[in-house]
Amino acid sequence: MGATVAIAGASGYAGGELLRLLLAHPELGVGTVTAHSKAGDRLITHHPQLIGLADRTLEPTTAEALAGHDVVILALPHGASAQIAAQLPDDVLVLDCGADHRLTDAAAWQKFYGTEHAGSWPYGLPELVHADGHKQRDALPGAKRIAVPGCNVTAVTLALAPGLAAGVVAPDDIVAVLACGTSGAGKSLKPHLLASEIMGAASPYAVGGVHRHIPEIQQNLQLASGGAPVTLSFTPTLVPMSRGILATVTAKLTGAADGAGVRAAWEAAYADEPFVHLLPQGQWPTTAAVLGANTAHVQVTVDEAAGRLVAVAAIDNLTKGTAGAAIQSANLALALPETLGLPTTGVAP
Amino acid sequence: MGATVAIAGASGYAGGELLRLLLAHPELGVGTVTAHSKAGDRLITHHPQLIGLADRTLEPTTAEALAGHDVVILALPHGASAQIAAQLPDDVLVLDCGADHRLTDAAAWQKFYGTEHAGSWPYGLPELVHADGHKQRDALPGAKRIAVPGCNVTAVTLALAPGLAAGVVAPDDIVAVLACGTSGAGKSLKPHLLASEIMGAASPYAVGGVHRHIPEIQQNLQLASGGAPVTLSFTPTLVPMSRGILATVTAKLTGAADGAGVRAAWEAAYADEPFVHLLPQGQWPTTAAVLGANTAHVQVTVDEAAGRLVAVAAIDNLTKGTAGAAIQSANLALALPETLGLPTTGVAP
Amino acid sequence: MGATVAIAGASGYAGGELLRLLLAHPELGVGTVTAHSKAGDRLITHHPQLIGLADRTLEPTTAEALAGHDVVILALPHGASAQIAAQLPDDVLVLDCGADHRLTDAAAWQKFYGTEHAGSWPYGLPELVHADGHKQRDALPGAKRIAVPGCNVTAVTLALAPGLAAGVVAPDDIVAVLACGTSGAGKSLKPHLLASEIMGAASPYAVGGVHRHIPEIQQNLQLASGGAPVTLSFTPTLVPMSRGILATVTAKLTGAADGAGVRAAWEAAYADEPFVHLLPQGQWPTTAAVLGANTAHVQVTVDEAAGRLVAVAAIDNLTKGTAGAAIQSANLALALPETLGLPTTGVAP
Amino acid sequence: MGATVAIAGASGYAGGELLRLLLAHPELGVGTVTAHSKAGDRLITHHPQLIGLADRTLEPTTAEALAGHDVVILALPHGASAQIAAQLPDDVLVLDCGADHRLTDAAAWQKFYGTEHAGSWPYGLPELVHADGHKQRDALPGAKRIAVPGCNVTAVTLALAPGLAAGVVAPDDIVAVLACGTSGAGKSLKPHLLASEIMGAASPYAVGGVHRHIPEIQQNLQLASGGAPVTLSFTPTLVPMSRGILATVTAKLTGAADGAGVRAAWEAAYADEPFVHLLPQGQWPTTAAVLGANTAHVQVTVDEAAGRLVAVAAIDNLTKGTAGAAIQSANLALALPETLGLPTTGVAP
Repeated sequence: MGATVAIAGASGYAGGELLRLLLAHPELGVGTVTAHSKAGDRLITHHPQLIGLADRTLEPTTAEALAGHDVVILALPHGASAQIAAQLPDDVLVLDCGADHRLTDAAAWQKFYGTEHAGSWPYGLPELVHADGHKQRDALPGAKRIAVPGCNVTAVTLALAPGLAAGVVAPDDIVAVLACGTSGAGKSLKPHLLASEIMGAASPYAVGGVHRHIPEIQQNLQLASGGAPVTLSFTPTLVPMSRGILATVTAKLTGAADGAGVRAAWEAAYADEPFVHLLPQGQWPTTAAVLGANTAHVQVTVDEAAGRLVAVAAIDNLTKGTAGAAIQSANLALALPETLGLPTTGVAP
Repeated sequence: MGATVAIAGASGYAGGELLRLLLAHPELGVGTVTAHSKAGDRLITHHPQLIGLADRTLEPTTAEALAGHDVVILALPHGASAQIAAQLPDDVLVLDCGADHRLTDAAAWQKFYGTEHAGSWPYGLPELVHADGHKQRDALPGAKRIAVPGCNVTAVTLALAPGLAAGVVAPDDIVAVLACGTSGAGKSLKPHLLASEIMGAASPYAVGGVHRHIPEIQQNLQLASGGAPVTLSFTPTLVPMSRGILATVTAKLTGAADGAGVRAAWEAAYADEPFVHLLPQGQWPTTAAVLGANTAHVQVTVDEAAGRLVAVAAIDNLTKGTAGAAIQSANLALALPETLGLPTTGVAP
Repeated sequence: MGATVAIAGASGYAGGELLRLLLAHPELGVGTVTAHSKAGDRLITHHPQLIGLADRTLEPTTAEALAGHDVVILALPHGASAQIAAQLPDDVLVLDCGADHRLTDAAAWQKFYGTEHAGSWPYGLPELVHADGHKQRDALPGAKRIAVPGCNVTAVTLALAPGLAAGVVAPDDIVAVLACGTSGAGKSLKPHLLASEIMGAASPYAVGGVHRHIPEIQQNLQLASGGAPVTLSFTPTLVPMSRGILATVTAKLTGAADGAGVRAAWEAAYADEPFVHLLPQGQWPTTAAVLGANTAHVQVTVDEAAGRLVAVAAIDNLTKGTAGAAIQSANLALALPETLGLPTTGVAP
Repeated sequence: MGATVAIAGASGYAGGELLRLLLAHPELGVGTVTAHSKAGDRLITHHPQLIGLADRTLEPTTAEALAGHDVVILALPHGASAQIAAQLPDDVLVLDCGADHRLTDAAAWQKFYGTEHAGSWPYGLPELVHADGHKQRDALPGAKRIAVPGCNVTAVTLALAPGLAAGVVAPDDIVAVLACGTSGAGKSLKPHLLASEIMGAASPYAVGGVHRHIPEIQQNLQLASGGAPVTLSFTPTLVPMSRGILATVTAKLTGAADGAGVRAAWEAAYADEPFVHLLPQGQWPTTAAVLGANTAHVQVTVDEAAGRLVAVAAIDNLTKGTAGAAIQSANLALALPETLGLPTTGVAP
């Protein structure tokens, strides 16, 4: 076992998923697991699936508890992760699953989060294609601080970025509507997240340009489009499933390519990607097929009558959307094989 | 009991919902119930919820079996309903829950359905607001043939029509993404509709401008916009619930009104509607709140950064989306109170 | 409108269901609606389905707020209902949906609830068949205080009581296992009731003889068996649905009757009941068929090899299990038709 | 890669799960994949989660297609597997996930299946404890034919066998009620398995002693009890989840041990088992915690008032219930480490 990993915020859903993946990782071992209000509890009380860690107890989330590990992964609310990250040694690899270090634009941070900007870290979405054709993974080898992307952001970005980078769609009128599982909202005890409210229900939230993932999506898509400003209408909807994000993204066609040319942009972008798959033509993504896998399934088509491309991506918000992404980036940062220890097959049906 | 109603296609989901509503209707009684391949079966085998009709048997779907009723409601596949409708007497009120008589444009029918156009009937969406301010309900009193709208169509139309009629949004770049319950796909035995495939899964279908509800939505929205052509990107997604449609619809703002002015358009359109409710500002529709009710819940907001309005509607596809709509229109056609016998309270949670 | 009904605890699930049913009741009108921590909120915030009460605000739960109505229905936690009930005038009809007044045996109350016994009220399960053949409904006309049964209790009692009353099964080794929807646990914010935890999960709770519904079931079944003590193994399991209880109940055959004779006991007990239906032989109950209805579906069979009868009942925990039962009993107490205003058709699929 | 495995019936749910597990197995590689009516289809059409096998096509299920592999796993309907198995060479390891070779008693086979008995094979439930204390795994090293247990059977057997082997519960009046996910019923196109029918529904099936898993459970529990005949009331119920079985099993206490002594029997039986876990006292199994894992979670308690023990087991019907069990037994037969390539952590939430 090459390295040990401490998990801050281990009682939550992202924390649990990190531990599930680490238990199957050949080179990364589970170190200290911490929590805030749940410190002192047995881990298995909160994560009965983690039978392999049945003897573990949650420690308080402090820099001391996290010290002495090769890697620290923060699965904390935004604000909390910046605070603890500031106390960790520079030579430890720290990955933040929260939002604190994702945005490069301090004004965007201030506008959407209302607090002071903590600065930005290398961004952990390896498959993000930039306008010049290079991928975001180039920024990660040797990095000591990595910002793990937001789950909705990953889905929308992977769906659309190839088209922007290839110039076949325009960045100025993008519409994204997402069907989201409830685990993305975490374990917080809110009435609208009760099972009785969710089953049988589809409902939107954070409608009208206020969702905090908007500036992060714009930042990514602007890298893909080569700097052209991105205009985005973004509406997430909660649907009755625990895991999964289905992002339906449409953008206006530029006319630079026909249907086959459009598809070629996605084929080129993802042909060699181990975790992002353009499905065979005519087969559309379903979140069920990526459950528990560090995999994104993508499909695109052209709607000539509407003058729009429709791109759809499906991911598991906790795996490729959070915990798997963190470990994929950690693999890259630590010069391990990028795919090490990460499942690619979904648990379906 | 003033009138009797025969139901053709009573073994399906729309048929079952029609019967549920008729059992509670004070002026409409259940007459003959027919089916095709299920003829001869006890009705309760297919609809265990219809305990009040436990003694009924399904008869074959023939004009003879349907004769002798005041009202005939067809809950049949498209094609089949036009065929049987042609054999029914002119003085019987016939409502078609299928698509055969919805489109006025024969070319659109031919393009999307590939068969000969059966002609169009008065369209049964009473709350559809036309550009001149009148509502579609004016076409229904005394009608002897009524085309019941498609369920997705009803959701999208009710969400957006007021804004087009008031000129606050543009008809030329509308995007609609829907989260749909499985009962809209009917009882047909297809692998992707199996429970094991649906639970935990969100997936799109009929992507890229090929869904048959597109020309019907365009027809409605064009009536609202006063004839301006409607450009629509339409993507339905299946999500794990039996009933319900959540339509998220966005259109470009014309600048004719600010946020308050925009909201005023919806307030004006629906203030007096018994079945369409603009929710209090800030409260977003959820399909759970309209389950089993002949009710649409609507909300709108303006996303200034995106230059788009977002309108959301929630309906139960089987009630306001199909069977309830049929009975509402039948009430109007028969000069009964429009709301008679129709539930307005959803079964929630 | 003959009478007005005040609802205490109107922000919860039982409260919402009471209001849904009252909105459709021709003789009972909605009076004051009260809540504890939610007092001051608009009712529609908590119950978006109650669009017909969109103008109502929740008042604090006090005897003063509840005064001046013909009927008061308490949908409060146990303990709270006894306290408020003691302050209400004797001539008001009070129905308690909580447990405080269900048990006649003070020692059983003390053992399972650990508090002082508040005394018992006439028990509102009209269809409970006693050993001498009379039904529990005889106790209700003119009553001014009625204890509404527990939801699990109703399901188990309706499943098995006819067999005990007829002497075809023995009361000394009954096993009941229930599949229960989450709304029975109410709206309390507990981690295990979050949607993310419930979807995809089946799990038991209160296992091993500690569930508080046990003495109430025993009390009912002892009335059916004519005083013979009832031994009961009772295990409820939470399954991923909002509403519904499926009770699978088995008891040893006494040998007093063969299969046909066994079935005859249930037929005799329920032939004239408007809300309890013995399904056609071979058709088993499903909770979906009783959703939103004040209906119980029951089926029985004999397993000769096991020497046991298996009886299954399906109800909606919020309708026949709570709110519908309250209104059914109120109808009886007020000398209205027992079935007035109560739906018998389930909302399926 | 030590050995190749052919899968017969690869288009079904058990087939898909076998392939998911094999893709992660370090010593077993995926060979030919066959199907009956789906032969010629691309595998990924039926299993979009198997992105790693995107280039594979389903071949017809024939002995020729299956020849030339070290291992053949049959995921076929009963009847079909016996037929094909008879044509496979003796020196190939064949595992049958169907029922054909599970029962040792030809009369029981005839009674429940109505066809001629194909004979029995070594039974692949390694953790089954026999009355003399040895485990069933002893029968598997070097075996060339293995019958994989039924999924419901595994759950009930693992829940109760330790108590029978230790003599703390009696075998003569066992009651088992199961909450079952829909994937156990396979991909067959039956109306009651449609998503619209299942969501929101709990319903029993095969009630009254007719389920084909009954003689297999009896066979296992008789091995545990040392030959005493087993009387079993068995009722499975379908609940709205894709995967998972929760078995609630009760049996009469013999009085041979008190509560602690009872628990000790389970502790002793499972202390060293890698895939069966007795949960900490007071924590009850949930199917969510074993999703996708080859793990059974078990808990027991004593209900003194009822004179019964309650034992509960949760498994994933496709993993520990079928495909994982097959691979676990294959590992044993091939002298590989028993746990090789098998996940023990559930995908939760």
